Amino acid sequence: MEEEVVGMPALPRVAVCGGTHGNELSGVYLIREWLKMERKVEDSELFSVLTVLSNPRAVQQGRRYTEMDLNRCFTHATLNRPITEQTPYEIIRSQELNSLLGPKGSSNAVDLICDLHNTTANMGLCLIAYSDCDWICLHIFRYLKRQMSDIPVRYIHFDLPPKEAYSLESVGKHGFAIEIGPQPHGVVRSNTYTAMKAGVQHVLDWIRLFNSGTVFEGGSVEVYTMVKNIDYPRDRETHNITAAIHPQLQDKDFCLLHPNDPIFQTFSGETLGYKGNESLHPFFINECAYYEKGIALSLARRRCVKIPTIQMQRGLQHQDERGFTSEELE
Amino acid sequence: MEEEVVGMPALPRVAVCGGTHGNELSGVYLIREWLKMERKVEDSELFSVLTVLSNPRAVQQGRRYTEMDLNRCFTHATLNRPITEQTPYEIIRSQELNSLLGPKGSSNAVDLICDLHNTTANMGLCLIAYSDCDWICLHIFRYLKRQMSDIPVRYIHFDLPPKEAYSLESVGKHGFAIEIGPQPHGVVRSNTYTAMKAGVQHVLDWIRLFNSGTVFEGGSVEVYTMVKNIDYPRDRETHNITAAIHPQLQDKDFCLLHPNDPIFQTFSGETLGYKGNESLHPFFINECAYYEKGIALSLARRRCVKIPTIQMQRGLQHQDERGFTSEELE
Repeated sequence: MEEEVVGMPALPRVAVCGGTHGNELSGVYLIREWLKMERKVEDSELFSVLTVLSNPRAVQQGRRYTEMDLNRCFTHATLNRPITEQTPYEIIRSQELNSLLGPKGSSNAVDLICDLHNTTANMGLCLIAYSDCDWICLHIFRYLKRQMSDIPVRYIHFDLPPKEAYSLESVGKHGFAIEIGPQPHGVVRSNTYTAMKAGVQHVLDWIRLFNSGTVFEGGSVEVYTMVKNIDYPRDRETHNITAAIHPQLQDKDFCLLHPNDPIFQTFSGETLGYKGNESLHPFFINECAYYEKGIALSLARRRCVKIPTIQMQRGLQHQDERGFTSEELE
Repeated sequence: MEEEVVGMPALPRVAVCGGTHGNELSGVYLIREWLKMERKVEDSELFSVLTVLSNPRAVQQGRRYTEMDLNRCFTHATLNRPITEQTPYEIIRSQELNSLLGPKGSSNAVDLICDLHNTTANMGLCLIAYSDCDWICLHIFRYLKRQMSDIPVRYIHFDLPPKEAYSLESVGKHGFAIEIGPQPHGVVRSNTYTAMKAGVQHVLDWIRLFNSGTVFEGGSVEVYTMVKNIDYPRDRETHNITAAIHPQLQDKDFCLLHPNDPIFQTFSGETLGYKGNESLHPFFINECAYYEKGIALSLARRRCVKIPTIQMQRGLQHQDERGFTSEELE
């Protein structure tokens, strides 16, 4: 029996963003490098690429953000909040970016946003997206995994509806973050920068092939679906953390964590075990920026997702993968 | 011929400081842990230990400093600057710490200050001091090197006169920073925390032995004397860096760097070589906090320093190793 080919609209308008967090430097320097180039990254008949430094003020200050985390500002509610004199810079900037790249959920939105991030966690290269049935994102993931042999490539799925999706990539018709680690925030390491550059180049290569009519065969891919976050043990009065990630868990992102496995080591030297009753895959272990968010690590369930054979089909209109049309999202 | 034993004054008052940089978390959590303990770290007849969180405001904000780098404020000039309404918090705090632990250069100063730091550079454990002839510091270094098998232990010497010495440990009669890396700023890693705790414990063990009258045999130790800093290549107009540390140099702290060895990789992929004509030992390679200071790495010359056999001798008064007496420094 011949497999059905799913036709999908072309991706003529692509945005690559960096500096959404001002101290995650691979993306900052990659975007700056591209902005310096006289010739655009890609500006063929097939598609155009817009490069964006998302939070220039935070980049300037060498901090994640100036007043609030920009990458939590792209929900439907925040994008539609009226601006007053008290509005934090990042909310104003999120609405600017929504005008430039969106509006989110509308037919005017760019076709794909690729937002560049770094983490202090030992996560290799991850695509992070809000959908486990966006065939474009999943095919790009499979392509990257095959092309990049130097670094593990994984797909993380945050199961949130589009209106609640809070990060920049949710403004595009398709979108994902590329997260690479470990790298300290405020530091640029050549190997991480080079991996980021190669990753983005492979994404653009895939889009060129797709827009040229290439058929991408179906198959199955591994997806890590976010289940829950675990916070550090904290002092009741001061709220200070009282333990660090256990040395046996540190840097073991995506290695299966079993019930009772060591998870924290208190500052007085005691080992604390994982209290859950399901074995799950940890990620974002000891991410610097998540201390303030109350996240010591996240846990995911690994699943196999079947993806169909796809091909670009002219004249098709984009429809949100979850069945929302643009109008319903307004 | 029997070797001469150099008699030195006891060390009855010791200070261990952390959080001088608010985002270097091993020291922050170690000091907090000790401040929580009801019993003091050490309070015997032999000596007392004062534990100090040096920059509580920066710790609270999770940043290196609030207005200026506290650990550059302990020069003679800054410690004597008049306080006005415009005086940055860190200058006020440096003068408070000088009252608590000094005054610098006076006979009232504590006998030894051990200040705890982290670096994003792959430096293992380093003692950093302003003297290569402070036998107390050098004997403690040799003791740590022998006791700690899990982590490389080195001694870095910044050749500055006491008045110009800018960091907290210069306030004590003896003093050094303990610098451990790699660890991202704003992150606490269990293994680094544990190494810091063990390091400090060995320092206190040595002081207990010394104050009890133990004879410490002379010999020779390896010292890295700071020669110069090298900045990143920068864009003339924007002053932004245009290259990162070369992947072949990254994490190779203390490995000899030869003329023409790769030192930077530009963001467009070009390799730049080391232009010096003397082989030297790099350290603080890609330290996060030094981007703003214009330091991509520092270079040191490795030397052998002979240290005499020493023993505590009652009734002796401290004299600065460089021959300054306390009065001359006032």
